[in-house]
Amino acid sequence: MAGRIALGLEYDGRLFCGWQTQPGGCAVQDALEAALAEVHGAPVSTIVAGRTDAGVHALNQVVHFDAVNDRPESAWLRGTNALLPPGVAVVWAKQVSEEFNARYAALERAYRYVLLNHPVRPALLAGKVGWVHAPLDQANMVEAAAHLLGEHDFSAFRAAECQAKSPVRQLRELNVVRHGDFFVLEFRANAFLHHQVRNMVGALVWVGLGRRSPAWVKEVLESRDRSQAAATFAADGLYLSAVRYDPKWGLPATVDRSGWAFAGAAGIMPSF
Amino acid sequence: MAGRIALGLEYDGRLFCGWQTQPGGCAVQDALEAALAEVHGAPVSTIVAGRTDAGVHALNQVVHFDAVNDRPESAWLRGTNALLPPGVAVVWAKQVSEEFNARYAALERAYRYVLLNHPVRPALLAGKVGWVHAPLDQANMVEAAAHLLGEHDFSAFRAAECQAKSPVRQLRELNVVRHGDFFVLEFRANAFLHHQVRNMVGALVWVGLGRRSPAWVKEVLESRDRSQAAATFAADGLYLSAVRYDPKWGLPATVDRSGWAFAGAAGIMPSF
Repeated sequence: MAGRIALGLEYDGRLFCGWQTQPGGCAVQDALEAALAEVHGAPVSTIVAGRTDAGVHALNQVVHFDAVNDRPESAWLRGTNALLPPGVAVVWAKQVSEEFNARYAALERAYRYVLLNHPVRPALLAGKVGWVHAPLDQANMVEAAAHLLGEHDFSAFRAAECQAKSPVRQLRELNVVRHGDFFVLEFRANAFLHHQVRNMVGALVWVGLGRRSPAWVKEVLESRDRSQAAATFAADGLYLSAVRYDPKWGLPATVDRSGWAFAGAAGIMPSF
Repeated sequence: MAGRIALGLEYDGRLFCGWQTQPGGCAVQDALEAALAEVHGAPVSTIVAGRTDAGVHALNQVVHFDAVNDRPESAWLRGTNALLPPGVAVVWAKQVSEEFNARYAALERAYRYVLLNHPVRPALLAGKVGWVHAPLDQANMVEAAAHLLGEHDFSAFRAAECQAKSPVRQLRELNVVRHGDFFVLEFRANAFLHHQVRNMVGALVWVGLGRRSPAWVKEVLESRDRSQAAATFAADGLYLSAVRYDPKWGLPATVDRSGWAFAGAAGIMPSF
């Protein structure tokens, strides 16, 4: 396979300083491009669907790159995995049309936030779930979440350093599901602003704790004022769970290798 | 609370060199005793239900120790957790009878082995699941597992360095359950020999891969010869999932904070 190639990626965000390449080489992109360049025998530049922050995990990140040298699929998949560090793996590799673009062809992104709601902090899942020790009220969180659905100016939930031209996004799904001691928040939108998911999680947690009413979330949204909202929640429990493209590109189906009891619970994954 | 105190522990085995104290202080026991000693204001010696090896995780390890200085329950629980490193946490603390012994009063131990059966190695779950890239045949593994159930001399599945006086153990449950790309093996016995679970997993994987027949497991067991069995499987996917005691001791119910889809799937956890 040469020409334009798409890859599906899984990674543990704790082990990297975010997606985007850094001078120190600590980013997922640095590790991936180094491994791909070795397989390719020439430099490789990747374009990504979702630029995740430090600490944010990916179950199904999608990238594309252009290869001038022909390599078998097994080289792009198994060869690259043999060269990557343990915290990141290529789950699939596929030759695609030169028209495909992992970033601009993406129709929707889905993120999952997993919270442990238990008096004792996580140990086995440290860095893999967010933690709230006081009991959360699911019904109030669901009511608050309803205010965020739809197309809105999400300026109140946007990081100061966000580079997007428009603060308008269409939030198409926001489920708050409980599984025993875990709360799972599943978000689906055409795209997300910088820190938007973590800022929405912060607001929903405040409502869940009873610090604010569900209606407060609507006020914050309408204020378009970041200073009105809650603090940005920890990256720990955040997963880029899926990126959806037009079926015409012929990409493989999204996989879920998280082992979570609640994988797909909110109905997002099966539809991708 | 002073006198004899029991604790429930959760830990990520990758971050320690096993349960048992080591000169370098890298063991779970070292971290725990250092934290407890600080809360207690005097040295603390712990006795554990199951001495896990390096890399083996615990969802519900149980220990006891004797405290001469009185401290509130919140100190033993939250105070200790504040002093422990992120990969280990005390999930519960309870004052118990001086007759209780975490090791000798244990009636049963349950271990869970989680395998990712997928062509691509785990990334998000690196170190938390074992990995078999070729397809496993569940029916053959279940047939093989049946030969191991019951009271047997398990010498063929015992590590050379095992210090147990008798190689006889009673294996009361061995379920091989499949959940999508994951195989979950749940083991319950009065007690286990050193490396017994990992050696049984190695044999069942050989059967699952078609390298050996289900009947071969019976031959290996009856040979009582360690050299007949498969290689010890990786520690990565092994969890001490529960320790059962007589209800008279009044210990809290076993919890499962793993988030696994298959937690309790084999029917072990709910019965504890």
